[in-house]
Amino acid sequence: MKTVGQLTMNRSVIGDRDKTAAIIVAGGAGTRMEGATPKQFRILGGVPVLMRTIALFEESSSIDRIIIVVPEAERNGLFRGDRARFRPTKPGDVRAGGATRRDSVAAGLEALDDSIGIVAVHDGARPLVTVDMIDRCVEEARRCGAAVVGVPVTDTLKVIDANRKITGTVDRESLWHVQTPQVFRRDIIMKAYERAMRDGRYGTDDATLVERIGVPVTMVDGSRDNIKITFEEDLLTAEAILAARSGTAKED
Amino acid sequence: MKTVGQLTMNRSVIGDRDKTAAIIVAGGAGTRMEGATPKQFRILGGVPVLMRTIALFEESSSIDRIIIVVPEAERNGLFRGDRARFRPTKPGDVRAGGATRRDSVAAGLEALDDSIGIVAVHDGARPLVTVDMIDRCVEEARRCGAAVVGVPVTDTLKVIDANRKITGTVDRESLWHVQTPQVFRRDIIMKAYERAMRDGRYGTDDATLVERIGVPVTMVDGSRDNIKITFEEDLLTAEAILAARSGTAKED
Repeated sequence: MKTVGQLTMNRSVIGDRDKTAAIIVAGGAGTRMEGATPKQFRILGGVPVLMRTIALFEESSSIDRIIIVVPEAERNGLFRGDRARFRPTKPGDVRAGGATRRDSVAAGLEALDDSIGIVAVHDGARPLVTVDMIDRCVEEARRCGAAVVGVPVTDTLKVIDANRKITGTVDRESLWHVQTPQVFRRDIIMKAYERAMRDGRYGTDDATLVERIGVPVTMVDGSRDNIKITFEEDLLTAEAILAARSGTAKED
Repeated sequence: MKTVGQLTMNRSVIGDRDKTAAIIVAGGAGTRMEGATPKQFRILGGVPVLMRTIALFEESSSIDRIIIVVPEAERNGLFRGDRARFRPTKPGDVRAGGATRRDSVAAGLEALDDSIGIVAVHDGARPLVTVDMIDRCVEEARRCGAAVVGVPVTDTLKVIDANRKITGTVDRESLWHVQTPQVFRRDIIMKAYERAMRDGRYGTDDATLVERIGVPVTMVDGSRDNIKITFEEDLLTAEAILAARSGTAKED
């Protein structure tokens, strides 16, 4: 019943708008990957990447609404045919994305109804997120306003100059790779996007915009498995991770 | 014949010590990975990881000597039985590694004979390096004294404080993940190690020590495939990359 207590605690801040919406961003054309099919629709373990992602947000009890943002051309037929079984039973919407990721997130934010107090933004191309990860990140965002998942950097990183000369080695002690979900109180992410649009200054993730308006963002443990399917080899890695999971647990 | 020209050019610096030795570092016990077999001896595409790595340095025409550093217990039987076919035909040695990676590199440096002017240090657990990558990195090190391979950072990286609050987003524009091979003129890497030992100050890679003595290190294009087998899923990823390679080219 911890969640109920936290809801009560936060009620003064978020009023009666205490439901959580997931915005699953899959608006890209996947131009970095070869092949005609955008990366979010490639088949992973027999299921399109995006459908696998959606199913996890459908399963998570932290999520009340599911907003899916896809290219305009995919919008109407998204759950047609074989994909019908992946249509979420939770309320939500399918919206058309824009030219950039931020346009797609903005389209998702516009789709929120008044009951939503918490927004979880997630890359459609991260199908290996887990329900537990979603739940923990939502819980932390409910507690403190903004939380993202990530993993510590283990590689050695170098700074190079224009001539490809190394100018320094980065102290990786406090460095984390950030992933999604990135979860925010709705008023915070709205304010962050408004500011970014006003200033014409964006970032490579949503947390950057929230950081910029001075709201502290908490890092929650993600997983090395929670990869984004960007390059062709990522799909192979994802298949390998799925195979390993099904070998050790009754999953898929 | 470009290489010959470069050799001549550098002869004033490196005298007649113009041969290149690879030090393949596989001294670790692989404690980060589950299972009794150290990661460098796990089987990848039917071949132990380390043997696959050695074969590429055997194949590269840039490499004249191969020094392999393994745990003391593995030293004598390294090329026994099935592994006999991976014994390099190039001159070299098998040395016992130390407690840490730097001890293993130092053991490799001690094994060099006087003909060696260039040293290529490589992780035994990076079996997906290519001959082309080795050759380009050696060529650049011959030209400028110190060169490493790496790939640009594509993830968003965050700096966090002790309370897991994000304190900033890293500007990734000039950030690269460094890999191996890391190739140095012998006098440079020797000086860097001497300084590190004297000061008791090491780093997470060899280039860090070279940077610290003020020698410019050049970043050469590595590959996203050139992963280090550290975690269990890395082995699966490596299998997937090998499968993709054999699907598109006549390799393996």
